[in-house]
Amino acid sequence: MIHPQQPSGMPFRKYQPFHEQIVVDLPDRTWPDKRIEKAPRWCAVDLRDGNQALIDPMNSERKLRMFKMLVKMGYKEIEVGFPSASQTDYDFVRELIEGGHIPDDVTIQVLTQCRDHLVERTYDAIRGAKQAIVHFYNSTSVLQRRVVFGLDQDGIIDIAVQGARLCKKLEELIPETTIYYEYSPESYTGTELDFAVRICNEVIDVIDPTPDHKMIINLPATVEMITPNVYADSIEWMVRHLDRRESVVVSLHPHNDRGEGVAAAELGYLAGADRIEGCLFGNGERTGNVDLVTLGMNMFSQGVDPQIDFSNIDEIRRTVEHCNQLPVGERHPWGGDLVFTAFSGSHQDAIKKGFEAMEREATESGKGIDELIWGVPYLPIDPHDVGRSYEAVVRVNSQSGKGGVAYIMKSEHQLDLPRRLQIEFSGVVQHGVDQDGGEVSPAELWSTFKDEYLPDPESRWGRFELINVNVDSPVDGNTTIEAVLRDGGSEVTVKGTGNGPIAAFIDAGSRIEGAPVDVRVLDYAEHALSAGGDSLAAAYVECAVGDRVLWGVGIDPSIVTASLKAIVSAVNRAERDGVVVGER
Amino acid sequence: MIHPQQPSGMPFRKYQPFHEQIVVDLPDRTWPDKRIEKAPRWCAVDLRDGNQALIDPMNSERKLRMFKMLVKMGYKEIEVGFPSASQTDYDFVRELIEGGHIPDDVTIQVLTQCRDHLVERTYDAIRGAKQAIVHFYNSTSVLQRRVVFGLDQDGIIDIAVQGARLCKKLEELIPETTIYYEYSPESYTGTELDFAVRICNEVIDVIDPTPDHKMIINLPATVEMITPNVYADSIEWMVRHLDRRESVVVSLHPHNDRGEGVAAAELGYLAGADRIEGCLFGNGERTGNVDLVTLGMNMFSQGVDPQIDFSNIDEIRRTVEHCNQLPVGERHPWGGDLVFTAFSGSHQDAIKKGFEAMEREATESGKGIDELIWGVPYLPIDPHDVGRSYEAVVRVNSQSGKGGVAYIMKSEHQLDLPRRLQIEFSGVVQHGVDQDGGEVSPAELWSTFKDEYLPDPESRWGRFELINVNVDSPVDGNTTIEAVLRDGGSEVTVKGTGNGPIAAFIDAGSRIEGAPVDVRVLDYAEHALSAGGDSLAAAYVECAVGDRVLWGVGIDPSIVTASLKAIVSAVNRAERDGVVVGER
Repeated sequence: MIHPQQPSGMPFRKYQPFHEQIVVDLPDRTWPDKRIEKAPRWCAVDLRDGNQALIDPMNSERKLRMFKMLVKMGYKEIEVGFPSASQTDYDFVRELIEGGHIPDDVTIQVLTQCRDHLVERTYDAIRGAKQAIVHFYNSTSVLQRRVVFGLDQDGIIDIAVQGARLCKKLEELIPETTIYYEYSPESYTGTELDFAVRICNEVIDVIDPTPDHKMIINLPATVEMITPNVYADSIEWMVRHLDRRESVVVSLHPHNDRGEGVAAAELGYLAGADRIEGCLFGNGERTGNVDLVTLGMNMFSQGVDPQIDFSNIDEIRRTVEHCNQLPVGERHPWGGDLVFTAFSGSHQDAIKKGFEAMEREATESGKGIDELIWGVPYLPIDPHDVGRSYEAVVRVNSQSGKGGVAYIMKSEHQLDLPRRLQIEFSGVVQHGVDQDGGEVSPAELWSTFKDEYLPDPESRWGRFELINVNVDSPVDGNTTIEAVLRDGGSEVTVKGTGNGPIAAFIDAGSRIEGAPVDVRVLDYAEHALSAGGDSLAAAYVECAVGDRVLWGVGIDPSIVTASLKAIVSAVNRAERDGVVVGER
Repeated sequence: MIHPQQPSGMPFRKYQPFHEQIVVDLPDRTWPDKRIEKAPRWCAVDLRDGNQALIDPMNSERKLRMFKMLVKMGYKEIEVGFPSASQTDYDFVRELIEGGHIPDDVTIQVLTQCRDHLVERTYDAIRGAKQAIVHFYNSTSVLQRRVVFGLDQDGIIDIAVQGARLCKKLEELIPETTIYYEYSPESYTGTELDFAVRICNEVIDVIDPTPDHKMIINLPATVEMITPNVYADSIEWMVRHLDRRESVVVSLHPHNDRGEGVAAAELGYLAGADRIEGCLFGNGERTGNVDLVTLGMNMFSQGVDPQIDFSNIDEIRRTVEHCNQLPVGERHPWGGDLVFTAFSGSHQDAIKKGFEAMEREATESGKGIDELIWGVPYLPIDPHDVGRSYEAVVRVNSQSGKGGVAYIMKSEHQLDLPRRLQIEFSGVVQHGVDQDGGEVSPAELWSTFKDEYLPDPESRWGRFELINVNVDSPVDGNTTIEAVLRDGGSEVTVKGTGNGPIAAFIDAGSRIEGAPVDVRVLDYAEHALSAGGDSLAAAYVECAVGDRVLWGVGIDPSIVTASLKAIVSAVNRAERDGVVVGER
């Protein structure tokens, strides 16, 4: 076959290949023969490198929520800010320390440039902490030396060494805090290796770490510049040439400009690093930092304990989305909405057979499914291990040849289902197809949807039905709600308050005498069904009811009533599935 | 420092490490010493592997749009469907052939399983094409042999060999079409290497390729199972052991389950592969296929011509988002909204100095900026090469310590700006800060916003102002609009039609006598500012006006008028920036 690809016309000649900028020569590399067999030391930098790159930086509430979740997941080293550069960072560090939010086995880390007044302010910020890592850095790359600093190698070393000396001196001012040090030759990937090792060794000499009190040398891919094997070669070279290796923790900090941050971290770790810095779901400047969730889950899927708890990955994702105000992509490894789905019939069939084989094996061996080695095609892990479930996504074809559950719900019923509800509902439809066989028509689809989410009041399959609601929302102050519900065969009137009608309604549900209903709203969307004065609103709520997470849907001319109906829908669905919603 | 990380409690023991499943042993690997110096043969599989994994599969219009864009970008091999498994895929292949949509130097590729009636239907589908690649596959992994097929190695080989024989036979039925073959041992990454090479060599023997008429052996990471260096080792091993290497094109098809699809493709390419299959922005089952945009741009940034045109990356992204109905993430390499931004002051400062250094160099050498080697810190490429621009994102602090342009616009003015408008507006604010120095208050922010997007009618800085609009929308049929505009000092009345008020208004603008205005709407969002009968609506439109892409904003009690005001805002802004909007 001929190879007819043509020149693109793009100005590729203005870019210099990496090997013409930086020499990395390690023909006797050993890392490709190694394996990852234990977790590295993790350091989460969401509150600094991640936060610094947000259009809406986290406020104190979001910062504290992120910090607490990182602690709960098991991170023991957490970079919490750049307190000398930002008053809000400074205040947050103080809040952590003075509020007693830092567990004894967690070490906060603070970043600073090597400038006197910034270093001094940094020590002010951490006063009173049990221990802290002071992370100081300066830029070392060929490019930054030339265009930003106008300094030669000795001048750049001088900045780092002076910074290290000042740190050591200031340490004496807060003797009650155990200080550890981290030094980063920033823009390491654009730095000649012999210079990088020289500046690090000069800093090590000043800090004078010991095997019992090590220091961290962090080698950031501030900008990812080349394939990850070359980064790994450079790390192995550095590890061989760093002084006092037994007193130094080698740390990686990969960014993701080439989409290879995860690989760079893993190959760099094989190459001898001890520690990895990153962010949950890969937030950070430009393309982000390496994603700590992917790194941890990759280890988990290889039978290695990540030492971090990912057992409720949706909760982690929701918290990250709340704190960062950025969505996690549908196809994001391990945590995206679509990663435990299968669309093709052959994939669905193989997965079904895989589950059946595991069930047979469990029966034959007398073991539980969870005691077996996992083996289901197209599902690298058991989705339940991260609190998810496998969804076979069915296709629906209308006569026009246009297909898809979401498409038909939107084009024929004006319902714009949120992505996770699309997936949930596809699973509902799939169960119907399995039972009845054949293809699903748009009419059957609608009937399935109504039956699942919008039961006809006549059929009364749900425990609850909303009969009347009165909302009182003063301009200043809480919303009060009084709702009349059918609960089984009888009517009850409930009252609640909250910062809005939904919160007030949930509060009211929790006060049902003798049968309180416990609901948390996780996600919420609402839209008008059509334009004009007589329009209907559709509301969708994702709720945690007992141990189940599921969606409810409400349609009503009033946007408030639609929302409350959606909550009732979720609660009724949970109860129908056997969740004990509130004891009667 | 102690290392206090604790066991996570997650059930990692149920997962078998890859090396206990599959042996890959290549201590004398040569790929780590190689470099990528030319583009591989690309094959875009968006219309098959990508489309198959969409909740809303593409309809014919979206498929054709994707196909045409792939062709325009420079892809010469395009997998267009699985015609024997799907009537819509079959119909689309026929439409491509019968509609004359396939250029002579483009080869379509169609997928089929090795089952007789499916292979036969595949040949029906491609009848009349000048040339085509028939891509047949069967699953070969240890797991699938056991749980899905219940066959031993010989049984699996038999499926592949029978499939190959049938293909060769059916080829005679359509002599007017030049047929090439591709064989995939599906789930290759879970297949023992000696078995993978054995089945491939058996197939090669049947197909009997020659150096002048090669066949493709595709080695898919159907599920990404291990670090990319091990995948590369396996590819190098296969390349050494495949028969008739001079007649075989070795192809890669990496998925992204571990977030390392890009690295797997690049290292596998170093390991001796010739060809890479993937999707634009990495669509596909679960976590998606490898992203062809990232692979191509990675090469470009290393001074290698990708042989694909990415010079308008936003247009590519918009088309992909339209076709897939899935967003491209804000931090997606090379194409995400945030990848050419800088948030931190030190990054912004270094970038500024980098630009200044390039300007000095250009002046001193008498060259244009584009003739120089690119060198700006934190910007791996010149954003203009992909039709983007660099944005320094400024932070705004209110007294509460909460910050961020988007946050303040939302919390204080109820304006929920779309992400790209947030970035655009941050750039506008940044220019103000550069001129005036100091921090920006919420009041200054609002005044900047109004002045930029919502000029006071009194100030009349814009060429156009909407004075009156009459919209006629019959239930069946096109919308007609009649608008009175102030154009400079005089009033004009314009009429237009379209499938909605915006389309009709743009049509009307294009009919202004003697001064037609050419606008295309690229993105659109609208929301209510507050609840209640007297609420205002805000509309945001991203428009292409001349060679500029920019946002307009309109606020009005009527949602229709708000939209039209937004278009006027964009046109006025373009003209203020010197774009010739319509000659008077």
